[in-house]
Amino acid sequence: MNSFIIKGDIAYSKNKDELVTVGDGYLVCRDGICQGIYEDVADLPDLPVVDHSGKLVLPGMIDLHIHAPQYAFRGTHMDEELMDWLNDYTFKEEAKYADLEYASAAYQMFADGLKRSATTRACVFGTIHREATELLMDKLAKTGLVAFVGKVNQDRNSPEELDEKSAEHSMEETELWLKETAGKYENVKPIITPRFIPTCSDELMEGLGSLAREHGLGVQSHLSENPNEIQLVLDLVPDIEFYGQGYEKHGMLGPKSIMAHCIYSAEEERMLLKESGTYVAHCPSSNLNLRSGMAQIRKYLNSGIKIGLGSDVAGGESESIFGEIANAIRVSKMIQRYHDADAKALTFSEAFWLATASGGSFFGSVGKFEPGFEFDAIVIDDAKQPCPQELSIADRVERSVYLAMDRYAIIDKYVKGYSLSSAFTPSAII
Amino acid sequence: MNSFIIKGDIAYSKNKDELVTVGDGYLVCRDGICQGIYEDVADLPDLPVVDHSGKLVLPGMIDLHIHAPQYAFRGTHMDEELMDWLNDYTFKEEAKYADLEYASAAYQMFADGLKRSATTRACVFGTIHREATELLMDKLAKTGLVAFVGKVNQDRNSPEELDEKSAEHSMEETELWLKETAGKYENVKPIITPRFIPTCSDELMEGLGSLAREHGLGVQSHLSENPNEIQLVLDLVPDIEFYGQGYEKHGMLGPKSIMAHCIYSAEEERMLLKESGTYVAHCPSSNLNLRSGMAQIRKYLNSGIKIGLGSDVAGGESESIFGEIANAIRVSKMIQRYHDADAKALTFSEAFWLATASGGSFFGSVGKFEPGFEFDAIVIDDAKQPCPQELSIADRVERSVYLAMDRYAIIDKYVKGYSLSSAFTPSAII
Repeated sequence: MNSFIIKGDIAYSKNKDELVTVGDGYLVCRDGICQGIYEDVADLPDLPVVDHSGKLVLPGMIDLHIHAPQYAFRGTHMDEELMDWLNDYTFKEEAKYADLEYASAAYQMFADGLKRSATTRACVFGTIHREATELLMDKLAKTGLVAFVGKVNQDRNSPEELDEKSAEHSMEETELWLKETAGKYENVKPIITPRFIPTCSDELMEGLGSLAREHGLGVQSHLSENPNEIQLVLDLVPDIEFYGQGYEKHGMLGPKSIMAHCIYSAEEERMLLKESGTYVAHCPSSNLNLRSGMAQIRKYLNSGIKIGLGSDVAGGESESIFGEIANAIRVSKMIQRYHDADAKALTFSEAFWLATASGGSFFGSVGKFEPGFEFDAIVIDDAKQPCPQELSIADRVERSVYLAMDRYAIIDKYVKGYSLSSAFTPSAII
Repeated sequence: MNSFIIKGDIAYSKNKDELVTVGDGYLVCRDGICQGIYEDVADLPDLPVVDHSGKLVLPGMIDLHIHAPQYAFRGTHMDEELMDWLNDYTFKEEAKYADLEYASAAYQMFADGLKRSATTRACVFGTIHREATELLMDKLAKTGLVAFVGKVNQDRNSPEELDEKSAEHSMEETELWLKETAGKYENVKPIITPRFIPTCSDELMEGLGSLAREHGLGVQSHLSENPNEIQLVLDLVPDIEFYGQGYEKHGMLGPKSIMAHCIYSAEEERMLLKESGTYVAHCPSSNLNLRSGMAQIRKYLNSGIKIGLGSDVAGGESESIFGEIANAIRVSKMIQRYHDADAKALTFSEAFWLATASGGSFFGSVGKFEPGFEFDAIVIDDAKQPCPQELSIADRVERSVYLAMDRYAIIDKYVKGYSLSSAFTPSAII
C-alpha cells in the first residue's frame, strides 16, 4: 500500500537556496518513508511504479497556522482590521461550534477542503468547545492528513459565548480533552492552544504551560500581530517588557511551539524566538487582509529563527499555501522597496522552502524527498495551463504556484506514503 | 441570439460605495443592450429565460492593461525587478513574435485564456511586429471579447531584435498596421502603443501623437512604474519636469488614453492625469511582483482621476482581474498601515467597482447592469466552494473574488449579449 515508486518530474528544496529538480525521475517510497530520487531505472528496487510522467511531483505543503472554525466564512468580511474583525465576525462564528450539528457540517467541509488542497500537514485551531474539537480531530483523522489540533482556551476579554469564565473551568475542559483524545489517532495529535494573551488570564496561562510540560506537548498561539493587540497585551500584563515574554514566563516557547505572525517583534523578541527554538508561522495573506502589517522575514531568516508558512484561515482567505508562497515573496519585496533596502526580497526558492522543508521540520523529517523523510507529496498536472515553449522544471514549479494550480491541477496527493486520491476524482475536484 | 433574460442572483456596482444585489432577479438583455434588473416575473418582456438560479451573475471584468506576448511566460521569473526583468526575459520572449508560427501558437493560448477568464474587455499590448499584432487581433476577434490592441513602438534603448531602428520605420509600420486593420473587426480596435518613453525617441513620440489625433485613437503606455525607470526618463528627456509631461507634450493624454501603474506620480502628475481625463490602469499584482511599489489609489480616487484595474501579464502573474481586486485592497491596506494613516484602505465595494464600472467606462456604457449599458456578464457557480451557512449576495461576491472562483467556477460569460459558453464546457475548463 505505501511502498511504491512515482515516475515524474520531481522537485524539492534541499535548502533555502537550492531547489533540486529531476526530470523523468523515480521517487521511491517504502513503508511510507522516502528512499530518495533515482534517475536510472536499472537501480530501482522491485516496487510497483505509478506513472506520472510529465507531471510535477512536489513535497506536500505545510500549514503551520489555520483556524478550522473560520473556514466557514473564508473570503468574506475582509474590510475590517483584526480586533474589529474578531469581535464583529470571528467570535460570533466560533460561538456556533457549541452546536455539534453545526460543527459537524462545518468541520466536514473544512476537512474536505484541506484534503483536496496542497497541504499534507497542518497546525489547527479549533474553538473553546471540547466536544466540537474532538469532532474536528475525528474528521481530520479520517482524511489521512497529519495535524496538530488545539482546543482553544480563553477565560477573559471574550464574548459571553466564548468565555470559559474561569481558568479552573478552562483547565478542566482541556485536561478532559487531552484524556479523551490521548493516543486515539495515528496522525492527529493535540497541541496546547491559548488563543492569545488578551483572552487568557495569567492563571490560565500558568496552568496551560504546566500541562504542556506534563504531557510533553507543544503550544500554538498568536504573537505581535497588530499594534492595538500589542498595546492591549502590555496593558494587561504589566510585568513583561514585550509581548513574547508573556508566553516565555509560562514556559510556552520552545521547539514544539509555534507563534503565528510576529510582525512587530523587535530585536529582543526575535532573540527570544531564536534562542528558544520556537517556530514562527508567517501568514502573509492574513497580515495583508487584516491590514496587520508586513513581517520582516529576511531579518528573521538572518537571525536563524525557524519559520514556516501559515494560511491563517480566515484572516487568510483560503487554505492555499501556494497563495502564501506568492504573498510571502510580495511582502518581502515591499519591505525591501520601502522599509529596508538591505533586506533582500525572498526568492521563489526560499519561499518554497519555507512552505515545505522549513515548515515541515516542525513535524520531524518532513518536507524533502531525501532518504529517511516521511513521504508526503502532491502531483500536479501543470499542462492544464498551456505554454508555447519548453519550461525548466524550476520554472514549472514557480508557475504552478503563481498560477494557483493547487486549486485545479492537483491530481494526487500522498501523506506518509498513503494516497489521498479519492479527493481528486473528477467529481471531487471543485 | 442576443436578446434574452437571465435569472439568477445578480450584483453590480452602482457607484464605488454601492453594490446593488438582487436575489432571484431577472436581468434583461435586448439586442446586446441591458434593459435593467427586474424583480417581478409579471413585468418581464417576452424573451427566453436562461435559468441560472442560485448562481451569481456579475458584470464582466475589465482589464485595462495586459501584454499578450508575455502570457507565454506568466508566473515565471518573478524574482527580478522591472528593468532586469525586461532585459533578461521579457524582451527575449517578445523577440520571438517575429516568427509568425510561434506567434500564432502563443497568441492562440492567450486568446483562449482570456476567453475563459472573467474578463470581457481588455486593452492589450502586442509587440513591435506588425504581422504578429494583426494575428493577435484576428484571434481576439474570434473570441467574441472586446479589445483595444496595440502594435508596440520602440526605436531606442531596445535589444537588437526589438529595435525598429528609426522613428520613420516605426511610423511606417504603424501606419500600415492601421490601414490594414481599419474597420476590419467589430470588437477589436487599434490603440497607439509607444512602449514607454525609455524606448521611444522624441521624434517617434511626436509622430505617434499626431497619428493618434489624425485617426481619433487613444494611446496606451506606462508611467511612473519604477524609480530607476523614472530617473532614466528624466535623463533622456531633459526638457520635462516629471515623467507624465513626456506624454503630454506629444498630445498623448486624454480620455481615450491609459497610463499603466502611476505608482510614483506626485501631485503635479496626478493633476495632469485628472485634468486630461486620462485613465490610470492600476496593476497591483505586477507592482508587487516586480517590486515596483504600491500605488496610492485612495489619493487618486480623492483627486477624481479615472481608474481601472490591469492584470499587466506577465508582471502580473495571471489574467485574473479577481486577483487584482484582492491585491488592490491589500496594497491599499499597507499604504494605510505604513504610509498614510488618512488614506483609508479600499473597501471590497470600491475595488469591485474599479474592476467593472470604473474601468468599464473607458469602453463607453459598460460595467453596470443598468438600462442602456452594453451587456457583458459572467455567471459563477459559487456553490463549488461549500459553506455551512446562508451568505448574503454581497458576501458571496466577495467570497467568489477572494477564493479566485474565476479560475474554476465560471459557467457562462456574455459580451455584448453574446454567450461565450463554448469556453466553459467541461473539457474547456482547466
